[in-house]
Amino acid sequence: MSAQVIAIDAMGGDFGPRSIVQASLACLSATPSLHLTLVGQPSLLEELLSGQSAADRARLTIMPASEVVTMDEKPAQALRGKPDSSMRVALELLRDGKAQACVSAGNTGALMALSRFVLKTLPGIDRPAMVAAIPTQKGYCQLLDLGANVDCSAEHLLQFAVMGSVAAQTLGIARPRVALLNIGTEDIKGNQQVKLAATLLQAARGIHYVGFVEGDGLYRGEADVVVCDGFVGNILLKSSEGLAAMIAARIEALFRKNLASRAVGALALPLMKRLQADLAPARHNGASFLGLQGIVVKSHGSAGVQGFQSAISRALIEIQENLPERLHGRLGDLLS
Amino acid sequence: MSAQVIAIDAMGGDFGPRSIVQASLACLSATPSLHLTLVGQPSLLEELLSGQSAADRARLTIMPASEVVTMDEKPAQALRGKPDSSMRVALELLRDGKAQACVSAGNTGALMALSRFVLKTLPGIDRPAMVAAIPTQKGYCQLLDLGANVDCSAEHLLQFAVMGSVAAQTLGIARPRVALLNIGTEDIKGNQQVKLAATLLQAARGIHYVGFVEGDGLYRGEADVVVCDGFVGNILLKSSEGLAAMIAARIEALFRKNLASRAVGALALPLMKRLQADLAPARHNGASFLGLQGIVVKSHGSAGVQGFQSAISRALIEIQENLPERLHGRLGDLLS
Repeated sequence: MSAQVIAIDAMGGDFGPRSIVQASLACLSATPSLHLTLVGQPSLLEELLSGQSAADRARLTIMPASEVVTMDEKPAQALRGKPDSSMRVALELLRDGKAQACVSAGNTGALMALSRFVLKTLPGIDRPAMVAAIPTQKGYCQLLDLGANVDCSAEHLLQFAVMGSVAAQTLGIARPRVALLNIGTEDIKGNQQVKLAATLLQAARGIHYVGFVEGDGLYRGEADVVVCDGFVGNILLKSSEGLAAMIAARIEALFRKNLASRAVGALALPLMKRLQADLAPARHNGASFLGLQGIVVKSHGSAGVQGFQSAISRALIEIQENLPERLHGRLGDLLS
Repeated sequence: MSAQVIAIDAMGGDFGPRSIVQASLACLSATPSLHLTLVGQPSLLEELLSGQSAADRARLTIMPASEVVTMDEKPAQALRGKPDSSMRVALELLRDGKAQACVSAGNTGALMALSRFVLKTLPGIDRPAMVAAIPTQKGYCQLLDLGANVDCSAEHLLQFAVMGSVAAQTLGIARPRVALLNIGTEDIKGNQQVKLAATLLQAARGIHYVGFVEGDGLYRGEADVVVCDGFVGNILLKSSEGLAAMIAARIEALFRKNLASRAVGALALPLMKRLQADLAPARHNGASFLGLQGIVVKSHGSAGVQGFQSAISRALIEIQENLPERLHGRLGDLLS
């Protein structure tokens, strides 16, 4: 396998560069064909790398960037006011062919705006979407959009369905079942966009559309790809995170109350922690931006070392599977 | 306290009249001031009541209705095609002052359509909303709308906020914190309706608006009333039900795998069952229709005896608290 180069926005996220550098070193040692370019303030990054041996640093390059996009900055401000931000420079490396993917834990809105501006979208795609895997009773489903697009037309939902289907295929599902998220399974249910999107999907060639799925059906594993607008997807994802945290807290309290059961609590709690991590996929596994001319993976701002490593791994899979090229081909077939 | 009369649609729901009759008898024996009118097919209802003593039946009347709205019937069909349905006759008893509330486990869409047609909405209210209590880390929050209105303007969201606030007060919260459900807490986040509704709520007198809340904030208990359109509310509610069921199944499997821990599983499982019931509030506690000229409580179609009892209890509280009159007064003050 040939070498992969990933550009890392080393300055983004709530935990700052320290955990990003740690995650980068861990990934380099795990994957011999991987090269990373850390983009950020050189003196700071050098300091964080100072204890490392030459061997550990062999496939790691530092690319200077003088500015940092903050977590609460407006996308337009990041776009117009910071031409030398670590986020932007990392995306430019990707655009210029000096990297095959970009990973950032920074401000989501700014990353989306800069990605669209620097990389452009694929032909036939109006707006990129954010997708992540969420756990179900039968495995995982790819849920999109997760918040990049608050208002969506039926055509946008169709584009998301096509992109989600291809993304699921790159993750090993040969014929992904694609569903639209709705408040009922009958034809008459839902808002105008969803009803119209159903008609478009029924007519789309090469996509295995299985109809509407409700919120509970999603967790029962009734589909491999679930499509909705970014407002609904974000609410679903974050409320799931919140509910899982609440249940974990209640179970912990239950086991704490009863001394005799503490030992067994030790059985249940790791399960809950794993579930919670699963239910914060952007936090844990990274969320992909689909529909761009390039691979961009967003790690959660408070992801920590392991979360950032997972985001790099997702970027690696997308490089190996040629995700943007495959998307481009399928979009040409399906949306023509 | 004076007597309360509640009209019961005895034919609705997946379990049919048997559990509704059982629930009705249980409520009558628990509340001496309560009178119930069971609406449905007399011969069937008489048969179900045949073993009961005269004392148990003293405050129970049967009102004949020859038709039944089925669970998959379209609302328009129920409205136009079945003038003598048990659902409609029960609502007419309410309209004619022969009952102070109506409880049904039947088809939600039909119940909403018939309620609007028979009872009419309160002045200032375009569309009734469906509200139910969902559990949080700090207690409960009233979430609305749960699916009665898929597309909502900012004005509708404002009306929901006012109605949810009054409903929370009748449940004992003196100064309910009212929030709008959104995908971020900054002003720039969200769709147009939500942003505009925030402006309207900031200007509304007598309402304790606390800003945006995200999906995870809802479960952290950041608000007592959470407002959203019916599409989003329904997706949130059903996905929460589905997630709670998935977590319960995983925990059950974990305890089943380990023989030694089965005894302690017995500790965790009742907690999960309680949580699941809590997370299916329309199933468990009943969901209220707000904004009508009368009290209508919807019990889930598959609620069973206990669920239907809870729905009758919620109707009783709303009668005692004069909910429609209080709503009418507050809407006059706030929306003028």
